[in-house]
Amino acid sequence: MSLRIVQFGLGPIGQACARLALDHGHQLVGALDLDPERVGKDVGEILGRDAVGAEVRDDPAALGEWAPDVVLHTTLSFLDRIEGQLMACIDAGAHVVSSSEELFWPFDRDPAFSERIDRAATEAGVVVVGTGVNPGFVMDLLPVVLSGVVARVDRVDVSRSVDAGRRRGPLQKKVGAGLTEAAFREREAAGGFGHIGMVESAKALAAGLGWDTAEVSETFGPHLADADYRTEHATVAAGDVAGIHQTATVTVDGETRATLTLTMAVGARDEDRVEIAGDPPLTVVVEGGTFGDTATVAAVVNTARRVAGARPGLRTMLEIPAAATNR
Amino acid sequence: MSLRIVQFGLGPIGQACARLALDHGHQLVGALDLDPERVGKDVGEILGRDAVGAEVRDDPAALGEWAPDVVLHTTLSFLDRIEGQLMACIDAGAHVVSSSEELFWPFDRDPAFSERIDRAATEAGVVVVGTGVNPGFVMDLLPVVLSGVVARVDRVDVSRSVDAGRRRGPLQKKVGAGLTEAAFREREAAGGFGHIGMVESAKALAAGLGWDTAEVSETFGPHLADADYRTEHATVAAGDVAGIHQTATVTVDGETRATLTLTMAVGARDEDRVEIAGDPPLTVVVEGGTFGDTATVAAVVNTARRVAGARPGLRTMLEIPAAATNR
Repeated sequence: MSLRIVQFGLGPIGQACARLALDHGHQLVGALDLDPERVGKDVGEILGRDAVGAEVRDDPAALGEWAPDVVLHTTLSFLDRIEGQLMACIDAGAHVVSSSEELFWPFDRDPAFSERIDRAATEAGVVVVGTGVNPGFVMDLLPVVLSGVVARVDRVDVSRSVDAGRRRGPLQKKVGAGLTEAAFREREAAGGFGHIGMVESAKALAAGLGWDTAEVSETFGPHLADADYRTEHATVAAGDVAGIHQTATVTVDGETRATLTLTMAVGARDEDRVEIAGDPPLTVVVEGGTFGDTATVAAVVNTARRVAGARPGLRTMLEIPAAATNR
Repeated sequence: MSLRIVQFGLGPIGQACARLALDHGHQLVGALDLDPERVGKDVGEILGRDAVGAEVRDDPAALGEWAPDVVLHTTLSFLDRIEGQLMACIDAGAHVVSSSEELFWPFDRDPAFSERIDRAATEAGVVVVGTGVNPGFVMDLLPVVLSGVVARVDRVDVSRSVDAGRRRGPLQKKVGAGLTEAAFREREAAGGFGHIGMVESAKALAAGLGWDTAEVSETFGPHLADADYRTEHATVAAGDVAGIHQTATVTVDGETRATLTLTMAVGARDEDRVEIAGDPPLTVVVEGGTFGDTATVAAVVNTARRVAGARPGLRTMLEIPAAATNR
């Protein structure tokens, strides 16, 4: 199945999505980006590939002309920044698969936004969905899928541990590797620090498990180094900050029913783990973890084939079929 | 969400499904079974529970009167034995969730059956789907879901290993524990021996991965004991048969792209394992395995809530939403 694809946003993730879409045999019919250095060029040139005969433009009005089946949307994390972009895609009659973390579960954060997008998408007969690895897979979709073979779910504990030392330099900076604890707290107080999407995962997990009265709380803090570490990008002294430690806790009627724990730190073990207490209990380990950079791109591009099988509207990954089967 | 449920088949799995449906807050409005000892009694009595005010009958015509939302169908494994049963459910306007192994992926085994059921279900606006653990989860749905975060799938290897010594006596008998190899081969030649559904899993996996030209081959043989074992139900001497070893291999254009391996034997390790070679590679282990007896029942009952979110017709678990979310 070859789809007409538009890439909305040509940052690193967007470029990787566009390349993978080509590798999957899709047709890249256009791309949107605001960078004047990119606008007017062939998309292939931006990707370091052969020309694909499709142009980068900065005006979403081009979507009507391109008539894509699916837009891969990889611009910004926050709902209040992307509504116009999503509406332009919907107006062009295109499905939207987005890496926006907040779009993975927008219903509680902004009910009015969600209703507007849902109504527009339903009327246009298209699906709008947010996806990724975290949120989008490890802490939400995967445990919900696993719960499908559990008769009674008492409690779910998910942990994702990422060795930031083996990841890109920007990620090590992003998690504060090498800071003193005081500098970390200063940066935290300034805001905009930490991984986005823990609450979204927790809300989706609770909804997927049918916990209608669930409440979610979160914590954020430094993960301190237990030894000295030196990577290509950061030097961390024992006792200083190796990275971040974030949790989201789901309580139902005052009882803790789920915990999500994210550690992204230099020297941390690479592993994802889902433990479902119940009948039968289920312990599932992703050995070596789910490599976020590639997997996020894969999630976006793989979802593009599957959206047509879902009901139009603002959907979640819990409602998108696992596969588009040609049978 | 409380559904009106009919239990079709009151064998051990059917009874467990009916009990779990009650535990999940559904309404049991009737049950079908051919055993004259059960017919005419209250379903609750058969389940060892309080009366539920619903009767066991032997004539599927009762479905029209009961008007269930969903029928839990747990009678027989084979397509040619269940078509009339499924049609009776469809005619009553009920979704069907079945534990029939062959129904998990019936399209290749019996295309004409599949077309008839699909047409009838589509016209009636209901979903018919087969589910379970194996087939239905470990070797098909789970690897397909995991592939959702893999950009390039080179190869998939799934193994399920079950310690038959820790399972029900009938299962130990079913896998031939304690037989000599000669007796095992004799029983094999007589037919009707071995786990059903490996080919169905392999076909579903291939379809879910978009391998349109996939071919599937299978092997079956004894798993020989490496030591003496004695369980409550069987005595196995070293060198005799501890259980079964089955494989299904998926080749695409002559190249092996997936292997499914099932070992059910006394003394075997309890573990499920999915290894996806590709980018990123993914290794997922269900530590201690997925406990088949309970998980199969869970799969059937949990799927009942989710069918209404899928397109009407003969569907597969790859197309059923992961959750029915009330948002």
